[in-house]
Amino acid sequence: MPKLLLHTERALNNIQMMADKASENGLKFRPHFKTHQSHEIGNWFKEYPIDGITVSSVSMAEYFARDGWQSITVAFPLNINEVGRIDKLASNIDLRVLAVSVDALKISEPVIEHEVGIYIELDPAYGRSGVDMNASSDIISIIDYLKASKAFRFEGFYMHAGHSYRNRGKKELVEFSNALVQRIKEFKKEFPFPICFGDTPSCSVLDDFTDIAQISPGNFVFYDWIQTQIGSCDPSKIAVAMQCDVVAKYENRNEILIHGGAVHFSKDSDMQAVGLPYFGQVIDQNWEVIPGVILKSVSQEHGIIQCTPEYFHKTIIGESIHIYPIHSCLTADLMGHYYTLDGQHISHLSANYK
Amino acid sequence: MPKLLLHTERALNNIQMMADKASENGLKFRPHFKTHQSHEIGNWFKEYPIDGITVSSVSMAEYFARDGWQSITVAFPLNINEVGRIDKLASNIDLRVLAVSVDALKISEPVIEHEVGIYIELDPAYGRSGVDMNASSDIISIIDYLKASKAFRFEGFYMHAGHSYRNRGKKELVEFSNALVQRIKEFKKEFPFPICFGDTPSCSVLDDFTDIAQISPGNFVFYDWIQTQIGSCDPSKIAVAMQCDVVAKYENRNEILIHGGAVHFSKDSDMQAVGLPYFGQVIDQNWEVIPGVILKSVSQEHGIIQCTPEYFHKTIIGESIHIYPIHSCLTADLMGHYYTLDGQHISHLSANYK
Repeated sequence: MPKLLLHTERALNNIQMMADKASENGLKFRPHFKTHQSHEIGNWFKEYPIDGITVSSVSMAEYFARDGWQSITVAFPLNINEVGRIDKLASNIDLRVLAVSVDALKISEPVIEHEVGIYIELDPAYGRSGVDMNASSDIISIIDYLKASKAFRFEGFYMHAGHSYRNRGKKELVEFSNALVQRIKEFKKEFPFPICFGDTPSCSVLDDFTDIAQISPGNFVFYDWIQTQIGSCDPSKIAVAMQCDVVAKYENRNEILIHGGAVHFSKDSDMQAVGLPYFGQVIDQNWEVIPGVILKSVSQEHGIIQCTPEYFHKTIIGESIHIYPIHSCLTADLMGHYYTLDGQHISHLSANYK
Repeated sequence: MPKLLLHTERALNNIQMMADKASENGLKFRPHFKTHQSHEIGNWFKEYPIDGITVSSVSMAEYFARDGWQSITVAFPLNINEVGRIDKLASNIDLRVLAVSVDALKISEPVIEHEVGIYIELDPAYGRSGVDMNASSDIISIIDYLKASKAFRFEGFYMHAGHSYRNRGKKELVEFSNALVQRIKEFKKEFPFPICFGDTPSCSVLDDFTDIAQISPGNFVFYDWIQTQIGSCDPSKIAVAMQCDVVAKYENRNEILIHGGAVHFSKDSDMQAVGLPYFGQVIDQNWEVIPGVILKSVSQEHGIIQCTPEYFHKTIIGESIHIYPIHSCLTADLMGHYYTLDGQHISHLSANYK
């Protein structure tokens, strides 16, 4: 059966690296827990000075609040159907959610009995969620509403520059991230409030965090194959790999069938130079990349490995091979638990909160 | 929170339709349970004459064996690392697995104490798994091995024509399926053994099943949006839809943010005419398709709905909207349970077997 392996040493190094970066730059560290979603891995962060944690749903906030976390940001716009649960959580912890307009705040205000922190979510031209950074009058109207509100406390701004994932290569990514920091500098002249800034690619390569108050990256705890293509890290930082059995060999097409498909890896893909997608990068037993050997396709339980002739011939039926997933967040969510390299079981909450 | 709704009446009609088709054509019916993976939905099939069931992993076979199913095909090539579990299962039920070469059979033979049925998997030019249908000598060598084996019983051939999913439109699909049946007719002249034939698109449109002994489609129980594009069914047969909350509206781009992302829908996509992917088709409260309103993008928990101006203006924050998933198998696996339209909870085994 496919297993998701966790390289503890690499994950701990990744946590240390980002915690150091926060501390050296005078940033508050509010790491995003959506990638690992794990009680045990969450506890590893307690070794470092952190200001609070970040999650992507109210259910995940409830889970980590039960786990003793006292300050949690739900990095998702306030959903008026969840106001009762939000109010209840806010009675126990320092809860913060995002706002993208006055509308949802107004509807929720009468239900909130326990003050909820609000970050105004800014859209830095990603186009997913948030108020356009250039829409000053919209931003002012939310700030004005929050300042007059008894239910909500204005915490500043939250920004996820998810379009950083469109970069390919460190040079491009560094230019992108520096331009973003420049844009934040300008923005702060008009709106001098704390900014919480989030994506793993930018946080991985930035040296200058001037005008940023808090960071909340998540994926860096494991990284994954797509992050190496974006330019965030090199493969030696990737802390999770799938272990899959070789089930059959097809010599005429130089391909191997593994047990490991879309219900294990997800269907997130990167593109090969030839314009076709692929779903994972094969590594050896020492977690070193094997060039030219990739997870070419996935269906529900089947995966097809495209091999070099050398790899094809030396690989035997029944062998377990290792593969870096394209997107560790989705792979971990699907697998629902981890095994460390010495066989210890590490939990993931996905099975409990959907 | 996102919910996966199950339209019981449609699912029951789909089961009846395929069971009737099997019975009218004198076919043994071994429905694939990988799509629903549900104890309750499995029981609905017990109203019909079925020969056994089909699953996609040994874990799924163990689950349904505990549920009382007495004849189960694991439609996956024999994995030599699972021989112990296979032998144990075969001590209780009529268990059948696939073989694609003599190698895995030879390695497993000494461990098997309870006879296991074997279908030789044929690859009808799909390129995923199976022995090339034209490779007569390879097929003969497996048959010869099986005939001499004490551990294994030759059951015939199994074929999943997964490339049927590349068709777009019923006409193209019917031509594809008829050509496949022609190919099977020729093949049977050389190898006169029973053939179990599987994919939902072909089984949905074929009228002539001559030379096919058994069918094992799975997706038809729910269908999904991609099946309407392939030509397998019309949208009125789709029996599952996601229910998602409208969280925010973005007037400048005519888009709506919902709570519902890749961890709910999966990242399986269809292509828009403009060459961009999309991840679901929005429907109204009566489960009627709303043309031009699609799930344009998904990240972990976020979904963006691309609207018509009319739909944008009438949709309000906090409203629950309904969306046909692109691929119901992956969506159901991610969601881990269903709710019927009258609120009844229906289980799914995904949380238990990975």
